[in-house]
Amino acid sequence: MSHNYGERAIELHRTHRGKIEMRAKVAIPDREALALVYTPGVGAVSSRIAEHPEEADVLTWRKNTVAVVSDGSAVLGLGNIGPAAALPVMEGKCAIFKQFAGIDAVPIVLDTQDPDAVIATVQAIAPSFGAIQLEDISAPRCFQIERTLQERLSIPVMHDDQHGTAIVMLAGLLNATKVVGKELASLRVVMSGAGAAGVAIAKLLHAVGVKEIIACDRQGAIFTGRDGLNEEKRVLASFTNPEKRTGTLAEMARGADVLIGVSGPGIFTKEIVSTLASGSMVFALANPIPEITPEEAKAAGVAVVATGRSDYPNQVNNALCYPGLFRGMLDKGVRQVDDAIKIRAAKAIAGFIPAPTAERIIPTLFDEGLHEAVANAV
Amino acid sequence: MSHNYGERAIELHRTHRGKIEMRAKVAIPDREALALVYTPGVGAVSSRIAEHPEEADVLTWRKNTVAVVSDGSAVLGLGNIGPAAALPVMEGKCAIFKQFAGIDAVPIVLDTQDPDAVIATVQAIAPSFGAIQLEDISAPRCFQIERTLQERLSIPVMHDDQHGTAIVMLAGLLNATKVVGKELASLRVVMSGAGAAGVAIAKLLHAVGVKEIIACDRQGAIFTGRDGLNEEKRVLASFTNPEKRTGTLAEMARGADVLIGVSGPGIFTKEIVSTLASGSMVFALANPIPEITPEEAKAAGVAVVATGRSDYPNQVNNALCYPGLFRGMLDKGVRQVDDAIKIRAAKAIAGFIPAPTAERIIPTLFDEGLHEAVANAV
Repeated sequence: MSHNYGERAIELHRTHRGKIEMRAKVAIPDREALALVYTPGVGAVSSRIAEHPEEADVLTWRKNTVAVVSDGSAVLGLGNIGPAAALPVMEGKCAIFKQFAGIDAVPIVLDTQDPDAVIATVQAIAPSFGAIQLEDISAPRCFQIERTLQERLSIPVMHDDQHGTAIVMLAGLLNATKVVGKELASLRVVMSGAGAAGVAIAKLLHAVGVKEIIACDRQGAIFTGRDGLNEEKRVLASFTNPEKRTGTLAEMARGADVLIGVSGPGIFTKEIVSTLASGSMVFALANPIPEITPEEAKAAGVAVVATGRSDYPNQVNNALCYPGLFRGMLDKGVRQVDDAIKIRAAKAIAGFIPAPTAERIIPTLFDEGLHEAVANAV
Repeated sequence: MSHNYGERAIELHRTHRGKIEMRAKVAIPDREALALVYTPGVGAVSSRIAEHPEEADVLTWRKNTVAVVSDGSAVLGLGNIGPAAALPVMEGKCAIFKQFAGIDAVPIVLDTQDPDAVIATVQAIAPSFGAIQLEDISAPRCFQIERTLQERLSIPVMHDDQHGTAIVMLAGLLNATKVVGKELASLRVVMSGAGAAGVAIAKLLHAVGVKEIIACDRQGAIFTGRDGLNEEKRVLASFTNPEKRTGTLAEMARGADVLIGVSGPGIFTKEIVSTLASGSMVFALANPIPEITPEEAKAAGVAVVATGRSDYPNQVNNALCYPGLFRGMLDKGVRQVDDAIKIRAAKAIAGFIPAPTAERIIPTLFDEGLHEAVANAV
């Protein structure tokens, strides 16, 4: 790993024993203060909420909180490493939530990977929180878990690996099309990977008006009627690849405008990308090793390249989206994350760059005002 | 409510939107810091924990955390007011945990009151935390929930309404016996109330060597063989009231040394307390209105009186115990809260007052060094 980030990160985590802490917002210096924060005074606060349940939003911390929930089944590129090993990632998300959006986020890692048990657990703890962010849950389990929780809960539930990635990728695409002078509606898009992020990206591109999308998995192009499609891939096939084309990723990519990778390292050879249309855009999002490096892609004639890495330009980073998105949803009492909200968030991120170039289609996490802009767009 | 605490507490909660917040312990000012707190650096931290699970205790915040869990079924004296209305109480506990013991506590209120579902939920979220404090869960459900979780989890689980109360009450009794010059082993103890706190108090007094205990509920003295005893009361009967005495609370109280109330307002009439032995001790713990006021009890000849209220001397307040107790358990890797630990904690609280008097058998939350003393005693 470049810059020895791994060793330094372990050292940092050991020194601080993790990255987050709980704090009291009200000091308790004496018995008088205690009587307000705790008994007897708190009894009146509880009684008030018992009579007027909506007051929990202003009398407790709940409306400013997000539970960051993972079962540890698909952590970063590391796979199914379980709840304890997932905890540092969830703590990192919580630190980012606070720093960039003032949200009090709590990491919750689960001792179960049974979808029904995950659903039951999140449902049971939901009254404690203002929103639920699902994180690093493997496909296809993640689809059922997210959908069921969205149906059952009256607070926003979002699986970040799906929609966070899709929103930021769309933001990049909106600016990339400006750079190469193409129209969204007439793009031919080919995608490698049909897991959590892939399905969400295809759905969002379809919702925003992209007409030609072909998704490929390890067996090649996905189309309605192909053998052995799981439920989510059947849905994917229903609105993509209308001509039911069959063939390999390389065959599908020929002449495409956009090539999206949410699959694995090195999948996009320079032979493949050199057959793309002129003015092509490549989103090679596998992390930490992308489907193709920006250097190789450029050398093969690609006009605009984005990756998931922070050491290249145009990083597709979920953290550009979720702090502002949840800030906006909490503040505006949004109960469901729908396509309209996702598209508005993507446009807010894209709009943050007034004059995009090939080297700058996506802002960075540290751009002043970005998260407020996303929150306001919700 | 005296001093208008209720209105002022509601105002305070509204101003601050609750009492606790999450904070990052590490600032994220730039891309370099982000690479350590989050990707790519955090991947090495997760991999390390995947290989060496015990390292989660030093590489995450977990080992300094407590989940404060309630299903809202028995909140303060307010009864079954549900999860949202319980949240201010749990937040208050969390604020106290941080202020008095540096523990990062998270309030978790549940959308279920089914014991099996409560157990399953706590079990599922357990990998996120270093310990579990159960809170304001009604009897007899609380017994099964606590016992099952203690069996299944490898972190400490404690129902505060039971054991926190029992430990602080025992601390008070240890000092009260010094004040009146009696021996613990020869005390005759009569208790009104056989719910969560009552059962735990009886068990702890028995464990510490008190030989004569009679517990009464609304039907009078509890004894082995009485009709309609639930499981917990059968256990209670097995080590109390060996002579199987029958009769009312008033009849049992005659000649007793200690009268403990964990029942309801006004249950101890002055007629009842005036029949106690000389040098008698009354713990009237119903809150906010005790079984008898200290003024009335004193007037009827009681030597030492304790209540649950902060505006009288000798407050039996769980918060004297749990911050230090959990601090000690987390620091020393204790996995089960047993009687020996509870008794040591009670002795540490009692020992904090070198020369007890009738007006001071129990320290206050704000006594410098109290919580450290409890932690060290674990």
